[in-house]
Amino acid sequence: MFSRVKIKELLANYTIGQEVTVMGWVRTFRNNQFIALNDGSVLTNLQVVVDFENTDPELLKKITTGAAIKAVGEVIASQGKGQAIEVKARLVEVLGVCDPEVYPLQPKKHSLEFLREIAHLRFRTNTFSAVFRVRHHLAMAIHQFFHEKGFVYMHSPIVTGSDAEGAGEMFRVTTLPLDKLPKTESGDIDFKKDFFGKSTNLTVSGQLEAELAALALSEVYTFGPTFRAENSNTSRHLAEFWMIEPEVAFADLKDNMDLAEGLLKYCLNHVMEFCKEDLEFLETRLLEEEKQKPQNERSDMALRDKLRFCLSNPFQRLTYTEAIDILKNSTPNKKGKFQYPIEAWGADLQSEHERYLVEKHFGKPVILTDYPKQIKAFYMRLNEDNNTVRAMDILFPGIGEIVGGSQREERLDVLMARMEEMHIPLEEMQWFLDTRRFGTCPHAGFGLGFERLVLFVTGMTNIRDVIPFPRFPGSAEF
Amino acid sequence: MFSRVKIKELLANYTIGQEVTVMGWVRTFRNNQFIALNDGSVLTNLQVVVDFENTDPELLKKITTGAAIKAVGEVIASQGKGQAIEVKARLVEVLGVCDPEVYPLQPKKHSLEFLREIAHLRFRTNTFSAVFRVRHHLAMAIHQFFHEKGFVYMHSPIVTGSDAEGAGEMFRVTTLPLDKLPKTESGDIDFKKDFFGKSTNLTVSGQLEAELAALALSEVYTFGPTFRAENSNTSRHLAEFWMIEPEVAFADLKDNMDLAEGLLKYCLNHVMEFCKEDLEFLETRLLEEEKQKPQNERSDMALRDKLRFCLSNPFQRLTYTEAIDILKNSTPNKKGKFQYPIEAWGADLQSEHERYLVEKHFGKPVILTDYPKQIKAFYMRLNEDNNTVRAMDILFPGIGEIVGGSQREERLDVLMARMEEMHIPLEEMQWFLDTRRFGTCPHAGFGLGFERLVLFVTGMTNIRDVIPFPRFPGSAEF
Repeated sequence: MFSRVKIKELLANYTIGQEVTVMGWVRTFRNNQFIALNDGSVLTNLQVVVDFENTDPELLKKITTGAAIKAVGEVIASQGKGQAIEVKARLVEVLGVCDPEVYPLQPKKHSLEFLREIAHLRFRTNTFSAVFRVRHHLAMAIHQFFHEKGFVYMHSPIVTGSDAEGAGEMFRVTTLPLDKLPKTESGDIDFKKDFFGKSTNLTVSGQLEAELAALALSEVYTFGPTFRAENSNTSRHLAEFWMIEPEVAFADLKDNMDLAEGLLKYCLNHVMEFCKEDLEFLETRLLEEEKQKPQNERSDMALRDKLRFCLSNPFQRLTYTEAIDILKNSTPNKKGKFQYPIEAWGADLQSEHERYLVEKHFGKPVILTDYPKQIKAFYMRLNEDNNTVRAMDILFPGIGEIVGGSQREERLDVLMARMEEMHIPLEEMQWFLDTRRFGTCPHAGFGLGFERLVLFVTGMTNIRDVIPFPRFPGSAEF
Repeated sequence: MFSRVKIKELLANYTIGQEVTVMGWVRTFRNNQFIALNDGSVLTNLQVVVDFENTDPELLKKITTGAAIKAVGEVIASQGKGQAIEVKARLVEVLGVCDPEVYPLQPKKHSLEFLREIAHLRFRTNTFSAVFRVRHHLAMAIHQFFHEKGFVYMHSPIVTGSDAEGAGEMFRVTTLPLDKLPKTESGDIDFKKDFFGKSTNLTVSGQLEAELAALALSEVYTFGPTFRAENSNTSRHLAEFWMIEPEVAFADLKDNMDLAEGLLKYCLNHVMEFCKEDLEFLETRLLEEEKQKPQNERSDMALRDKLRFCLSNPFQRLTYTEAIDILKNSTPNKKGKFQYPIEAWGADLQSEHERYLVEKHFGKPVILTDYPKQIKAFYMRLNEDNNTVRAMDILFPGIGEIVGGSQREERLDVLMARMEEMHIPLEEMQWFLDTRRFGTCPHAGFGLGFERLVLFVTGMTNIRDVIPFPRFPGSAEF
């Protein structure tokens, strides 16, 4: 019934003189004559020309910013500049009005902060429609990349009874009535009466479950939501975010680095090819935003130059130990410019150190490997020095850590010793240990924070602006 | 370092005489000589022939079912039947042993119930590796289908502060300490102190948020986890399951039916093309399973015949009212064979009625439309009879409802009246009503239960067997 042509398709493939039906939302209406129509399929507006002299003035009044309209007419070569074609309407119908007196989105520049308050309407702006189209293409690129390599997409569980991973604070999931919690005889809360018969949380990572699958299917990946209940009110953290976690049997740390670098470059190539117009728009947006900043806080490169730069250089690979040497001898460290001075091996790297390495010292993405075991998770493979583990973090300019991964500890005895050292309850993790007990093999994997990637590619500066409805402390709106 | 060829690739593309390195897990080891090796990339095992006379007997002892091995050798034409090639190993290395005395998976048939108890190991069986490869291909088909049509993949939120949808019982998400809940002055639990500053739950559907995006981007879809805290301990229900929810602006119910039928057929075609071997295996498995059943409970068709049948017939489309007429006059209704006899228009259809329509009366998938408004959700578009709504349910043989959707009520006044009738708090839903207030337009969408689809395609009979780690009352293992 609603057979229409989408604006993206029309602009890509038209014949002058053909009759078309288009539907979308009015961005602006000039001189009672020129409708800039957008249907979300593409950034570009289609100009629809109204024969205002022969149109009911009551109808004309309803053609306002935000109104949904249907227009039928002839494709003609555009008289104006900025577009090749326009549609000369012989019929315009207003499907849904939009009262300009109360519509929050006016045809002017709104701040990102204001738009975040009305996240249910911000899809209707150029910036956010571009961001969410790019987000879509990045998700498709990720699936294609793994699918082409023969990986199996695996859905790890969201509600989990396991709380031993220690990756961060967790959200409790429960159906117990909070106003009359059941108690055991000893007076504790009786989680046996909870929905799952035990205390459950939202997952912080699908990795351990992905390992179970990889040790049977060889190559798997997850792409799902993960959660952190940390009270981080920053522009880089979300309480709910999407993560991609590949896990590969018969792979070591070098294979893992190659896979991660390959994935990131595939994604960047993909958007450079399929999101040209949106990236150009976002690049201009970023330039405008940065004009408000002092010179020394502006990017050295325009958005697409930054993507090209990451694509054309191999990521710099070095060990944590080498990085500490560089940082210790760096000018900012010697001059006391770091908030956390680097004094000795073993220090956990802060954002300022990561940025120095990536943005100042190497000027490209960096892969740091072989961190001290004290600052990394229990499942990372212990090196022969008994002091470092086969971890890797990929650091990106402006973003910091975008990927964290490792070769896994596949040796049952070493793994159990590490878990005991770190007070991880072995009895609750027998299912995980079974992978090492029965047909264990070297394997490796990593986690890619999807929103961090979208942030990098779109040049947005607040992570709350790259997920449709951000969740953070104090906010679960819409 | 671990450069190996995957068995799927080797079987598809080999040269007799080439040297290869393969890695995987031993399925069986016959006569101290023949290893059936599986690496999860494909159902077929690769035969690796060991030169047992020149191999250390201690090594031979470690080649047991479940052990992870590496084999290097020459590709030769197979002597035995059932395979074209085998690998004559010049080197076999055991990467991870597997003690046959304690390994739960023996080279024999295990019951699905038993394998569910050891879901962390069941990926290693033919049945489950086939199921999860098919699941992967179905997920890819869904993304490809929408991507090719220009839809935007949209991540709707998992944690939600909205509890007004009424789609089912919800799980609470909280970081409040259960042992000392903060109270307000009036003695109620103080959810202002909870992580998100209010009471929050796990989402039951991303539809409302998808509508917000569709009314800007035109065509979107979600593919994410959804939750129901219902105490349903059945073979058809999960507490955590994945749902696909497309939402399309400028679409009516017919467009919606076409989209859903197109999607389902695209998925079936896709697996028929890319999962031949796994489907053949699953078909045989189902035949074996059904041999245990009485004749009248067996399927009329083999698995792939059933898929082909759905592909080659248009789905039967009829209204609820027409369906009631058919059911009222049906033999089982007249003979009192229905547990819930159909007496009058307005009755909610039960599984037995759906199955009668699909399996007996029409013998193909059925789309029922225009249900009584009393038994459907508030957001469905009211028909002019003021009595029925533009709902659609797609019913599949053996599965029942696989898709539920509707054209949405886009008229603000009608929607608000419906919500008041159904006691849905308007003040909490202003963000949703804004879509109707500002540039509303006809739109439609549906939800496809992903596990129901996997169930149908794989011929498995319990929904707990088509998701890696099923969540249901009393169980959140692994």
